[in-house]
Amino acid sequence: MNYSELSLEMHEKNKGKIEVASKVKIDTRDDLSIAYTPGVAEPCKRIYDNKDDVYKYTSKGNLIAVVTDGSAVLGLGNIGPEASMPVMEGKAILFKEFGDVDAVPICLNTGDVDEIVETIKRISPTFGGINLEDISAPRCFLIEKRLKEELNIPVFHDDQHGTAVVVSAGLINALKVVGKKLEDVKIVVNGSGAAGGAIVRMLLCLGVKNVIMCDSNGIIYKGSTTNNWVKEELASLTNKENLRGSLKDAMIGADVFIGVSIGGVVSKEMVRSMNKESIIFAMANPTPEIFPEDAKEAGAKIIGTGRSDYPNQINNVLAFPGIFRGTLDARARDINNKMNIAAAYAIANMVGEKDLSPEFIIPDALNKEVSKKVAEAVRQEAIKSNLSRI
Amino acid sequence: MNYSELSLEMHEKNKGKIEVASKVKIDTRDDLSIAYTPGVAEPCKRIYDNKDDVYKYTSKGNLIAVVTDGSAVLGLGNIGPEASMPVMEGKAILFKEFGDVDAVPICLNTGDVDEIVETIKRISPTFGGINLEDISAPRCFLIEKRLKEELNIPVFHDDQHGTAVVVSAGLINALKVVGKKLEDVKIVVNGSGAAGGAIVRMLLCLGVKNVIMCDSNGIIYKGSTTNNWVKEELASLTNKENLRGSLKDAMIGADVFIGVSIGGVVSKEMVRSMNKESIIFAMANPTPEIFPEDAKEAGAKIIGTGRSDYPNQINNVLAFPGIFRGTLDARARDINNKMNIAAAYAIANMVGEKDLSPEFIIPDALNKEVSKKVAEAVRQEAIKSNLSRI
Repeated sequence: MNYSELSLEMHEKNKGKIEVASKVKIDTRDDLSIAYTPGVAEPCKRIYDNKDDVYKYTSKGNLIAVVTDGSAVLGLGNIGPEASMPVMEGKAILFKEFGDVDAVPICLNTGDVDEIVETIKRISPTFGGINLEDISAPRCFLIEKRLKEELNIPVFHDDQHGTAVVVSAGLINALKVVGKKLEDVKIVVNGSGAAGGAIVRMLLCLGVKNVIMCDSNGIIYKGSTTNNWVKEELASLTNKENLRGSLKDAMIGADVFIGVSIGGVVSKEMVRSMNKESIIFAMANPTPEIFPEDAKEAGAKIIGTGRSDYPNQINNVLAFPGIFRGTLDARARDINNKMNIAAAYAIANMVGEKDLSPEFIIPDALNKEVSKKVAEAVRQEAIKSNLSRI
Repeated sequence: MNYSELSLEMHEKNKGKIEVASKVKIDTRDDLSIAYTPGVAEPCKRIYDNKDDVYKYTSKGNLIAVVTDGSAVLGLGNIGPEASMPVMEGKAILFKEFGDVDAVPICLNTGDVDEIVETIKRISPTFGGINLEDISAPRCFLIEKRLKEELNIPVFHDDQHGTAVVVSAGLINALKVVGKKLEDVKIVVNGSGAAGGAIVRMLLCLGVKNVIMCDSNGIIYKGSTTNNWVKEELASLTNKENLRGSLKDAMIGADVFIGVSIGGVVSKEMVRSMNKESIIFAMANPTPEIFPEDAKEAGAKIIGTGRSDYPNQINNVLAFPGIFRGTLDARARDINNKMNIAAAYAIANMVGEKDLSPEFIIPDALNKEVSKKVAEAVRQEAIKSNLSRI
């Protein structure tokens, strides 16, 4: 199928993908007096008296903003706020369809960190949460960090944590299949954008000890002159032996390769140099770091990609709708590591032990049961973590 | 009916009044590939190549922000952004129900003019228009003026222009009933908030020559020490004889009283001092400047209020949905005076000559045909005014 052509047609026919719907009818004078003036003054007064009642009488508690500056959209790069709108609307309909979360695209025409933070803070009274989207690294880390400190509603950057959660879910199951343990394996993560750093941090939370991170300059190590502050921080968390060299060097003897980088950077030879029963998540889109047939031929046991036309699609839609559903249900003021880990295990557990196989380590992206399980796990963890406000 | 109680119940049961709905289904892998990746990249690229295509492939062209800082909400005053949310959601559902316009509440936690302007500009790539709402005077005038200059999407402050349009429509018909002409009558407008100034300016556009404006300090005149810059400007447009005195003094010999002020400020005596066949629009809510039965007793011929339980309800819902519908349909870059005047005549014309009576000068607020006629009149005027971009 020619998805590009079909997508253009569909977007033009519908003039976009979202609309605002009313939950109440306005047919009679009484309807108008209850939904609008004079009746509406009463919920206003209650909220004025007790700000928390905004969750009781308004849509805030189920309404999130999907915020971008259009600086890192899909593989297209910095295409600006207008051109990012179709992706943000796409995200909004996935939030609704898979999590019953109401999401509004907010595409900003500023790329300045302070201005983005400030703008989100100013519009925050309307929203119950903020999903950052397609903002380029390293600005995205600063923006997320500041918002988490300065806002009292949950903030999530899907390109970081959504990806990390789904990768973790896939890895948990893949390791079951090959009979290895998180604390024993050597993992190479290639790509130091939004996803790479978040994946590394989450793997460490899960108990992984040996991670080597690479990017276009090769292995990331402490004190490299090419490090910005983010890479220096990641260098201090990984690569305990302070190895230097190329991605090729890093992969020798590795058990797992996780690619969130660019297509074609992994050769069969590199896969052959890995430990036996190796696991490859080649998630560059649309061209993976190595095509599954090549990885298989070179001896990889389990291969995942970002594509829907191969087995084991690592798709964020398994994570973000359920994570926000659970967070909003708990009215949690933050989404912490534990909630993300709970989400990863909930996704992993959707594949039963007897169904697990090298070709089936992660549930289907369209399985709507997944987000329900994720939501419940995240909600419970929010309560345990004392982040719930109800 | 106890609208306050019913309204609380309804808002709590529904958890607010709006939701985000998807215009497309996501049931199959192909649906996902067309609405989201990889297909969605194509509309993104088209918009990147030609920014105007954002109107072709996204919801922007039908999506407006209803923006407030919560500083002048209903008669409640400065209750803040959270407490204003029920009103903004109410506005959003009226936009949808009467104009098929998708409106999103944006409640800002800043009251600073520069910050409000800046924030709206930053979020503007998502929206096809901005409806300012319940922002106190005189800041609302500055904000509207700056946005009209600095944004390339239409900006409308309903409390000003929506009210002015509906008052004008009512007045056009009321004068037909009593057989007087716009250019001959003496009109007293009481209230110098957002609505008062806009009503005065629109009356002048319609051809009225003799307007006296009053507020809590009495007649507004040039050079008064109590004038801010807005009142000084309005003083220069009105009160040609530079009269001084109280509202009571102003009303002697007036043909029309328009109140957008506070309840109870007009006495029967004051109505008795007016010209014969006088017209009273007493729109303070919920208590009008004078109750219709008292005004009638004192000799007024036609009385309108803001209330639904008396004849001639002057309700903005007759104007704003149709004005935005027509503006968006024309993809107009501005909403000018002529478009507002076209809206006023379209509303007035909805009451046929033979139906016109002192008790029926304005169509019913629930008559959904009105916004269609308004939209068409506004769309045509946008084209004539060379503001349409399609």
